[in-house]
Amino acid sequence: MSIKKSGATIIFFILISVGYANDGYKLWLQYLPFENKAVSDYYRDYLENISISGESPTLDIIQKELIIASKGFFDQQVLPEFSKTTDSNLTWIIRSEDLPEEIKGKLGTKLSEVKEEGYWLKSYQGKIIITAKTDIGLLYGTFAFLKAIQTREKLENLDRLENPKIQKRLLNHWDNLNRTVERGYAGFSIWNWHRLPNHIDQQYIDYARANASIGINGTSIFNVNSNALILTPEYLEKAKALADAFRPYGIKIYLTARFNAPMILDSLPTADPQDPAVQVWWKKKTKEIYSYIPDFGGFLVKADSEGQPGPHNYGRTQADGANMLADAVRPFGGIVMWRAFVYNEKTPTDRIRQAYDEFKPLDGTFRDNVIVQVKNGPLDFQPREPFHPLFGAMPKTPLMMEFQITKEYLGQETHWVNLATMWREILQSDTYAKGKGSTVSKVIDGSLHGYKLTGIAGVANIGTDRNWTGHQTAQADWYAFGKLAWNPDANIDEIAEDWLKMTFSNDVDFVATSKEIMLRSHEILVNYMTPLGLHHIMARSHHWGPGPWVTGGGREDWTATYYHKASEEGIGFDRTEKGSNALAQYAPEWKKTWGDADKIPLEYLLWFHRVSWDKKLSTGNNLWTEMALRYQKGVEGARWMQSQWAKMEGKIDQERYEHISSFFKIQVSEAEWWRDSCLLYFQQFSKMTLPPGVEKPKHDLKYYLNFKRNFVPGI
Amino acid sequence: MSIKKSGATIIFFILISVGYANDGYKLWLQYLPFENKAVSDYYRDYLENISISGESPTLDIIQKELIIASKGFFDQQVLPEFSKTTDSNLTWIIRSEDLPEEIKGKLGTKLSEVKEEGYWLKSYQGKIIITAKTDIGLLYGTFAFLKAIQTREKLENLDRLENPKIQKRLLNHWDNLNRTVERGYAGFSIWNWHRLPNHIDQQYIDYARANASIGINGTSIFNVNSNALILTPEYLEKAKALADAFRPYGIKIYLTARFNAPMILDSLPTADPQDPAVQVWWKKKTKEIYSYIPDFGGFLVKADSEGQPGPHNYGRTQADGANMLADAVRPFGGIVMWRAFVYNEKTPTDRIRQAYDEFKPLDGTFRDNVIVQVKNGPLDFQPREPFHPLFGAMPKTPLMMEFQITKEYLGQETHWVNLATMWREILQSDTYAKGKGSTVSKVIDGSLHGYKLTGIAGVANIGTDRNWTGHQTAQADWYAFGKLAWNPDANIDEIAEDWLKMTFSNDVDFVATSKEIMLRSHEILVNYMTPLGLHHIMARSHHWGPGPWVTGGGREDWTATYYHKASEEGIGFDRTEKGSNALAQYAPEWKKTWGDADKIPLEYLLWFHRVSWDKKLSTGNNLWTEMALRYQKGVEGARWMQSQWAKMEGKIDQERYEHISSFFKIQVSEAEWWRDSCLLYFQQFSKMTLPPGVEKPKHDLKYYLNFKRNFVPGI
Repeated sequence: MSIKKSGATIIFFILISVGYANDGYKLWLQYLPFENKAVSDYYRDYLENISISGESPTLDIIQKELIIASKGFFDQQVLPEFSKTTDSNLTWIIRSEDLPEEIKGKLGTKLSEVKEEGYWLKSYQGKIIITAKTDIGLLYGTFAFLKAIQTREKLENLDRLENPKIQKRLLNHWDNLNRTVERGYAGFSIWNWHRLPNHIDQQYIDYARANASIGINGTSIFNVNSNALILTPEYLEKAKALADAFRPYGIKIYLTARFNAPMILDSLPTADPQDPAVQVWWKKKTKEIYSYIPDFGGFLVKADSEGQPGPHNYGRTQADGANMLADAVRPFGGIVMWRAFVYNEKTPTDRIRQAYDEFKPLDGTFRDNVIVQVKNGPLDFQPREPFHPLFGAMPKTPLMMEFQITKEYLGQETHWVNLATMWREILQSDTYAKGKGSTVSKVIDGSLHGYKLTGIAGVANIGTDRNWTGHQTAQADWYAFGKLAWNPDANIDEIAEDWLKMTFSNDVDFVATSKEIMLRSHEILVNYMTPLGLHHIMARSHHWGPGPWVTGGGREDWTATYYHKASEEGIGFDRTEKGSNALAQYAPEWKKTWGDADKIPLEYLLWFHRVSWDKKLSTGNNLWTEMALRYQKGVEGARWMQSQWAKMEGKIDQERYEHISSFFKIQVSEAEWWRDSCLLYFQQFSKMTLPPGVEKPKHDLKYYLNFKRNFVPGI
Repeated sequence: MSIKKSGATIIFFILISVGYANDGYKLWLQYLPFENKAVSDYYRDYLENISISGESPTLDIIQKELIIASKGFFDQQVLPEFSKTTDSNLTWIIRSEDLPEEIKGKLGTKLSEVKEEGYWLKSYQGKIIITAKTDIGLLYGTFAFLKAIQTREKLENLDRLENPKIQKRLLNHWDNLNRTVERGYAGFSIWNWHRLPNHIDQQYIDYARANASIGINGTSIFNVNSNALILTPEYLEKAKALADAFRPYGIKIYLTARFNAPMILDSLPTADPQDPAVQVWWKKKTKEIYSYIPDFGGFLVKADSEGQPGPHNYGRTQADGANMLADAVRPFGGIVMWRAFVYNEKTPTDRIRQAYDEFKPLDGTFRDNVIVQVKNGPLDFQPREPFHPLFGAMPKTPLMMEFQITKEYLGQETHWVNLATMWREILQSDTYAKGKGSTVSKVIDGSLHGYKLTGIAGVANIGTDRNWTGHQTAQADWYAFGKLAWNPDANIDEIAEDWLKMTFSNDVDFVATSKEIMLRSHEILVNYMTPLGLHHIMARSHHWGPGPWVTGGGREDWTATYYHKASEEGIGFDRTEKGSNALAQYAPEWKKTWGDADKIPLEYLLWFHRVSWDKKLSTGNNLWTEMALRYQKGVEGARWMQSQWAKMEGKIDQERYEHISSFFKIQVSEAEWWRDSCLLYFQQFSKMTLPPGVEKPKHDLKYYLNFKRNFVPGI
């Protein structure tokens, strides 16, 4: 990359960029032009002359990113000059071991607090020093430096030392070989297998840049409903090409392992994890994978779940299965991420009990390079669930969090809902495993139980859409996932604010208004979809739109009626000791509040209790009235978001403004669809009228029951 | 759209834009920054102050396009000012009827030569006048004006009066409702049905802009292998949303009609076109469509072909089917495009005879709002075919051309092959229908037979890929299709040159080198895939890669062996009077050359003749040697293209340079794959050794026979 210095000394800032087309491809790495000369002059000092010590592909990437950023900030009028020496430059990017001894001394022992992937941004005698133990740390530090500029931080007193709190920070792509994406709503898979390995698309590089900028250090590129073909040389060669492209960004490749691959690929008679031939097969296969990808991260496995083969087929435990694979990757330093989302082929009394019942007894029986990957809640990525009871219940087995960034049950890609709000609710939930304050975040960062291995995974919401994520604002969920993966206790207010500034504008009004939309969006969605603890009342299979009437079919626990159990007597799933007693999977402290239908926070009421329609609630309303009012409130919330957004016109580029505006049309009309159809359906049982303030449904129930959905994406 | 004037009087041109990321999304509408101040100053006079007379959505689009262009040309430093009056402005955009009388007088009778969609760019007393009868003509004129600037034409003596030679200039999208694209290799369908009608994506607008810029005025948005669902209100509402978006760009929507839709949608017992209830059904359905889309263009129909239902099912003719639909759309001014790609369920002696045998006898029996859509050759979009014998054979029935812009049989999306070269070969072929000079172009522009209705369709190569077309250079095929649709006798050299300048750079070396690659590319591909008239020897079904060994299966005429008939005695399909006599479908003049295996141009030899391996050819080589040398020449040609392209580094942006470079890796290796596997396969029959100069195959035949293709795109 050739580096030129601008000869221009006079710079004109003409704000005609505003209103110019912006499809959102650049994500939060927009590096939008500075808003005036004063701001530009201030940061120019730090960007014009930069010292980067050393040489490596990662350091090249750092240099390139600084060029891209400068081109953006200065509207192509200023380019940084780079030098290897530190003399006279205001910004230094330098490994801590290479710092001049004098400075090392002055920085003191704090320097040793910078760990493997950490960094330190330190203002020092008028300079900014970005230092780290590793080049990846320097890359993270550079992105932090650029973020400080993007969000208009003052640099003089910068003193930011950061280490990731979680080791394995992964995206999980549920991408199929035909490029469809299971639960993908942003088009199709960005992985173009047909063109790999020869063609490395710029989008793969930009994917790696984006992930590195938020600290993600691993990616599992295939669907967990896996195809054994990915373990053949044809696809390993393609995976290797991606691994090579991602390596300098600090991102490792993981593969999903289909449990019966030995049978499919090499006609072994069994996939029994205790069968020596099967064990040998996996060891050989693993060795082969490492011959392609020397730093292969390991396997991600969905077994004994939704038709996937697994150790149950041979009467073995989940630990038997996981340990076999763990033994295969151990010599190479790999790990196994074994999903806890296991459930029997027979419909149980209460599906949400299963993972706990299956895994809890296995605590302590897994190899130390196995980590069990647990969804945030015990059911399946609902708009609201209590935290998964396994968190806190497996002190001897590392557990990692699985969040779903893609919005399977949350209106898919056209609803603006800020997932960080929901994730915080989970992460800050108290497991009481070691007394008060034993939050889920402390379980997964390893501090509560002293896990040696820690991890977090987000099911990606990335596709071929020009803006990556369908909704422009769904980029915020990808961003927030990275930030919470780095630090699960991070402040989601700040995350939202930073994202807005980096992605759209530093305009004060814009940031304030949009942040309020973001922070209120989750509760609004819960209200118009599943208020009061309702769950799994989406349409069958694709889960798009309401389907409280879904009943019958292959499995009862794939229906809505199984979960809401509405009748004239009442509604809700009794999970107290009088019912399935799933509540007992939680610490006793929770029984006190959640176990009592009069004390439980209303947002979990119907999750844990079955109550009558006329039950009087703490709000003063009876259940039916409260439900109807909450649905109405959700619709009004969606309309409020839409009207707030309408005020943003002109504050950002027109293309993204309009993109979001038109999605609001969909969101508001779907919110109404949810309210009208759910209330009409439940009204059959409550036999009560809609309370004042709740709008009359647009159609009758029959209309909603007969509404045909064709070609819904994501399945 | 607010219009601001730049306050800047000093402009700096810093060429750091070169090397900045460019994903190709802007197509040939890049409006790249002027290369120096002199060029900038020259065009600035014409772009700074522009008069646009009148008001309409199309005139708004013109204004917006001029802003986009100026932002690009002047690197965001200059914006045009617009006025409604013509005083003092150097550029006028004005309907001819609105021209001042004085100027009308001076422009004279030539003004009346400007037809409905035509325009006149006229330098007049130091001004540029862009005038037209209609606003769409003005839009086309504006794009012509911008092209003149993009290609650095001098404007002083501009005098360009253009009318399209063909009326209906359409793209045909073979896009399915699940967003897969049949024979689509650039990702998936850009039509996001799920989000329509509420969300009109910017990409739809940019699609319309691009098409308008090359004069395309219609688009058929669904696959010809159609789904009756598209005729239901759910999808008509979505189609209407697109029609509304495209209307101001002069682009009409057409729909594909599934022939048995009355049975599928309304349970009619038959779809017999002579059945009154069926006729009434289509009339009602058509009326309904027009209630959504008042300027609906009409139907495109694939019937009685590859499993599609059609009039044959009821013992009716293609004319019976087409006329029924024609009667339905006639009251609204619609047309029916009835595809000639009909073939029986039984394998015939020679499949290429069928369309002619079926349609020729029907000449004169179609309604006057029917146009028969004929593929360029009698088989199916092969790398080289002679022109379709129906051209020239249907004087009383309008025929339109169907080209395939997507590269089903041409290596799909990773081979650089300039299709305009192939299309010119067809368009300039002489049908001899009315004596020498009766070219195919004169058939389809209507001049030969006096057709009242004329048309041309291109099967789109557009998908979700960030550059629209997979290969950056496949944009040139979309561009050239538009240009040849406007004027089928247009100079393809100029088309290539203009496209290169508009898309990449005006650099003289770059344009010369790249143009040579483009103009040689088709012959190179024919050599490494199907030299000497070979055809349909691609792999089964997806048609990617070689498959000369494909034999057996459901239909003989879907195999390779049916077409090449290789044995120890020789190779080729005898289509002379000793064989299928398909040759007799052409004018007698062709029999003289094509009928004689010693006189026929070698590129058609095996298309029309079966000859022995040792037959001596005009080149002095025997058939086997010539075949082997041509395969080798094709591979060398691909390598030559690659090495020429390597010289272009630094002349254009790095992203597109590298994108094309990496596709060359694929193209060269696939050229070798074609050569090696075809020669090894045919060598079994020729029993001769490879001549000197032909490289030894990399693998043995068994390797190629067993090569597994997984998840090939486009089916």
